[in-house]
Amino acid sequence: MTKSTKNSAVLLIHCPDKSGIVVAITEFIYKNDGNILYLDQHVDTERGVFFMRVEWELDGFAIDRHKIAEYFETLVGSRYQMTSQLYFADDKPRMALFVSKMSHCFYDLLARYECGELDVEIPLVISNHTDLQTASERLGIEYHCISINKDNKEEQEARQKALLAQHDIDFIVLARYMQVLSDEFVKDYPQRVINIHHSFLPAFPGGRPYHSAHERGVKIIGATSHYVTAELDAGPIIEQDVVHVSHKDTVEDLVRIGRDLEKIVLARAVRHHVHHDLLVYENRTVVFD
Amino acid sequence: MTKSTKNSAVLLIHCPDKSGIVVAITEFIYKNDGNILYLDQHVDTERGVFFMRVEWELDGFAIDRHKIAEYFETLVGSRYQMTSQLYFADDKPRMALFVSKMSHCFYDLLARYECGELDVEIPLVISNHTDLQTASERLGIEYHCISINKDNKEEQEARQKALLAQHDIDFIVLARYMQVLSDEFVKDYPQRVINIHHSFLPAFPGGRPYHSAHERGVKIIGATSHYVTAELDAGPIIEQDVVHVSHKDTVEDLVRIGRDLEKIVLARAVRHHVHHDLLVYENRTVVFD
Amino acid sequence: MTKSTKNSAVLLIHCPDKSGIVVAITEFIYKNDGNILYLDQHVDTERGVFFMRVEWELDGFAIDRHKIAEYFETLVGSRYQMTSQLYFADDKPRMALFVSKMSHCFYDLLARYECGELDVEIPLVISNHTDLQTASERLGIEYHCISINKDNKEEQEARQKALLAQHDIDFIVLARYMQVLSDEFVKDYPQRVINIHHSFLPAFPGGRPYHSAHERGVKIIGATSHYVTAELDAGPIIEQDVVHVSHKDTVEDLVRIGRDLEKIVLARAVRHHVHHDLLVYENRTVVFD
Amino acid sequence: MTKSTKNSAVLLIHCPDKSGIVVAITEFIYKNDGNILYLDQHVDTERGVFFMRVEWELDGFAIDRHKIAEYFETLVGSRYQMTSQLYFADDKPRMALFVSKMSHCFYDLLARYECGELDVEIPLVISNHTDLQTASERLGIEYHCISINKDNKEEQEARQKALLAQHDIDFIVLARYMQVLSDEFVKDYPQRVINIHHSFLPAFPGGRPYHSAHERGVKIIGATSHYVTAELDAGPIIEQDVVHVSHKDTVEDLVRIGRDLEKIVLARAVRHHVHHDLLVYENRTVVFD
Repeated sequence: MTKSTKNSAVLLIHCPDKSGIVVAITEFIYKNDGNILYLDQHVDTERGVFFMRVEWELDGFAIDRHKIAEYFETLVGSRYQMTSQLYFADDKPRMALFVSKMSHCFYDLLARYECGELDVEIPLVISNHTDLQTASERLGIEYHCISINKDNKEEQEARQKALLAQHDIDFIVLARYMQVLSDEFVKDYPQRVINIHHSFLPAFPGGRPYHSAHERGVKIIGATSHYVTAELDAGPIIEQDVVHVSHKDTVEDLVRIGRDLEKIVLARAVRHHVHHDLLVYENRTVVFD
Repeated sequence: MTKSTKNSAVLLIHCPDKSGIVVAITEFIYKNDGNILYLDQHVDTERGVFFMRVEWELDGFAIDRHKIAEYFETLVGSRYQMTSQLYFADDKPRMALFVSKMSHCFYDLLARYECGELDVEIPLVISNHTDLQTASERLGIEYHCISINKDNKEEQEARQKALLAQHDIDFIVLARYMQVLSDEFVKDYPQRVINIHHSFLPAFPGGRPYHSAHERGVKIIGATSHYVTAELDAGPIIEQDVVHVSHKDTVEDLVRIGRDLEKIVLARAVRHHVHHDLLVYENRTVVFD
Repeated sequence: MTKSTKNSAVLLIHCPDKSGIVVAITEFIYKNDGNILYLDQHVDTERGVFFMRVEWELDGFAIDRHKIAEYFETLVGSRYQMTSQLYFADDKPRMALFVSKMSHCFYDLLARYECGELDVEIPLVISNHTDLQTASERLGIEYHCISINKDNKEEQEARQKALLAQHDIDFIVLARYMQVLSDEFVKDYPQRVINIHHSFLPAFPGGRPYHSAHERGVKIIGATSHYVTAELDAGPIIEQDVVHVSHKDTVEDLVRIGRDLEKIVLARAVRHHVHHDLLVYENRTVVFD
Repeated sequence: MTKSTKNSAVLLIHCPDKSGIVVAITEFIYKNDGNILYLDQHVDTERGVFFMRVEWELDGFAIDRHKIAEYFETLVGSRYQMTSQLYFADDKPRMALFVSKMSHCFYDLLARYECGELDVEIPLVISNHTDLQTASERLGIEYHCISINKDNKEEQEARQKALLAQHDIDFIVLARYMQVLSDEFVKDYPQRVINIHHSFLPAFPGGRPYHSAHERGVKIIGATSHYVTAELDAGPIIEQDVVHVSHKDTVEDLVRIGRDLEKIVLARAVRHHVHHDLLVYENRTVVFD
């Protein structure tokens, strides 16, 4: 789906399932002169949880932007024990890229950024190498090389966090970063760090998945984009895709073929995050698309 | 999605887009003690048309089943110029199969029917050959062999229609029937005749699409399920899928590989029709899944 | 690819890679007046192993059918330390089906058998239940219900083996059989037992993979057909395929959607086996297609 | 597959099918101390045509590089009426890019070029606009803006051809060039101009295929890479792929989703061309992969 307007609000909600929720939310919008653009809901009947994404036009809406969250919580949210997030379509999220030496996801995201496909600001790239510095700076993006080893991890992550704070970063994309973030780091950015793993998880977590795939003799390889959590490669999955391979493909072929998958799966996941199309609940995602 | 209950109603709606439609519909359900199970909406912003599918539980619903359509039209539908269809999940649609000699789609649908996957009654099979008679009758399905040629088409179609009426048939599935229905026949069953065509339409309409695909040297072949309209292979598309092929595949290989596509694409289309998951508007489908 | 003739021989070979192998094999065929129909080779450069599948017409071939294996071994095979298998296209392999209560793979294979798509004889179905007896017997296939529990496993497997011997069975297809064969049984049928597992292995081995997939929140589900080895779900993979799913799909939906995958992946694997299109080497398959 | 060596020769052959061809070719290589790396053959039984791709190591090969073509033609080719092409793996083809304003295929190919994935030299970009000049020149690629309208087409194409000759260009990639080459131009570069068309041909040839796809209500969109011939969008297809779409997707969504398809389908086609993996015969391709 395409956003039809820049002056709109997006509300993401989950709460215990109960009769009347849809009416309560849509009435709140309608009675205050908002025009609903998209409405998507889902009920997890097993867990008894209601999920919704609703987007409406703000032109002529009776409640001031900065008051909407408060009004909604008071008049609707609190009555249904809702957990809600409110976003405005014209607020561009600020994204930091963490990269290493591999360039394919990095270049792919930058090309989308440059041609206006990605609705974000990218003020910051952080890497443990200098390889991609020139390409970043050409687009006016600040580049910091922060090498991490097991002795300096704590202080280097502190430097990273300082940069993230200084640039007012909303979320981080690990574009084949090749470093494991510390639990403390991850805890500070819940559902705000997106990783691309080069296998169809839960198969082949951890290092060298293409080697493992080749060794196992699988006929498909995949890529998985997920939010980073404390447990390695076990966070909520946002996007996955696969491609067929054969006995002819060497590990090098899998690496090459996989690059195209990784680029596209990561780009789709970033798009969902940026468009506020997804909710996380109990380590799984609800993706409204 | 799975139907969560048998005692539920499904409403399919389209109307000119306007503020307040979602509230009006959900209020009608909520105020009369219905519990919404699924709600899906779509706005075609280009044409200014609003589409919705909503399903709610009828246990405890304040309005009698046979009065719901009238109440809805009076209280909601007429105010928004809605075109609406109402279905009940425990009404099993009655489906007739039109077949010829090829058995793959026929056997596939019967296997799904036998194991309870298809929520329909199949009281009638009509064919221009006797090949599949035994298999039909084994499952207690009436089988009529009605040969059609250009001289007897009108009277034979009259016989077909009489059988359809006698068995109270709701919709027809052409499971590789190989005959073109007359315009008059099609007109009598609008959006009630589902066909499977063995190409990714609009490529290769008409006869012998696998031969044409082979001749053109395409690298993918497909299958398309659509509602039958007066114009051949040009009706609203319900489902499509494709598979990769190569220069090694002969026409016979394409026919064989294509059979698996045809079976699955047709079965998915029948499922959408039976679950009232789709709406037709200006020769295109809105499929809520 | 399609077999172009019934009077042809298929040779499957692997051996240490070395210069001159292709010449040696093709000369053997050509000098004895055989016409090569298909030739496919593959070199595993990492392991230094050469693989080949070659099929040639036997009309006018200078060596008698029953002497070909001996001549080839003496004149070519022994000089290159080849491991080879020889098949004749007009020898129909004899296949036994092991089933349980679930009918989808069973019906699918029988439909392919009945319409002539599968180039096999199916004289025997073995099950631990009686559910599919009528359908088997309708096609003249002997059906034996042999219930297995942990106390009688040895003697019941002995009964199974006796039936397999009596019917001169070449290979076994476990069409959702739901029982684990003993190591002894497996050892007696090396690369002759084909299983369908309802996940994209190595993800979700063992029981209830759809439940695990749902719990993990994956966005794709898969099916894997493999040769059975002593280690559960770890044998050489013949075919895999996947389909996209979403948060809307319940476990029941995954089970239903997965059935179509299982049918097709198993049928493709059986086809490869029957057409002698594949070789197993160090727990991986080389599939010539 | 991966090329295993840089010092190897590739022979692409087609000729009337006849017994003994494989022996003749492999003997030529083996007797002259060449080691076969890959051998792929295909027989079009309908047309009676034999196709082969064979690659062998040149280290220690008895015939000088620049004599191989002559020797092969004299000793083998002429006896079987072969049409053959000979390539050396260490000869990097020289590729020209023709672009317009759209950057996605252009950036994608350049990223592959920069990271060493594409085995080509790109000395020249030609465009009818200046938009991509800076990006070209940053990589040291000459950029020429040559605007074409119906009055100056002949002279401007003459300028293009002069540049192609001057840069010793082997083949041209139209990366969404948006101009139709004249028949004369096409005739000068047979099977040397690769185009990417944004539909699954033969559906939606010509302009605005995404608009037509949306209008028709298809459930899949595709991209096709083909050699350019005199008839628009009707040349031999090299690669095709598709992606599922839905009623929710506007034309703008199709354009965006399609960009990822176009990039990947074009890159795969260029790879096949560069690796000499394909043969054209009667407007169809034989792709050895």
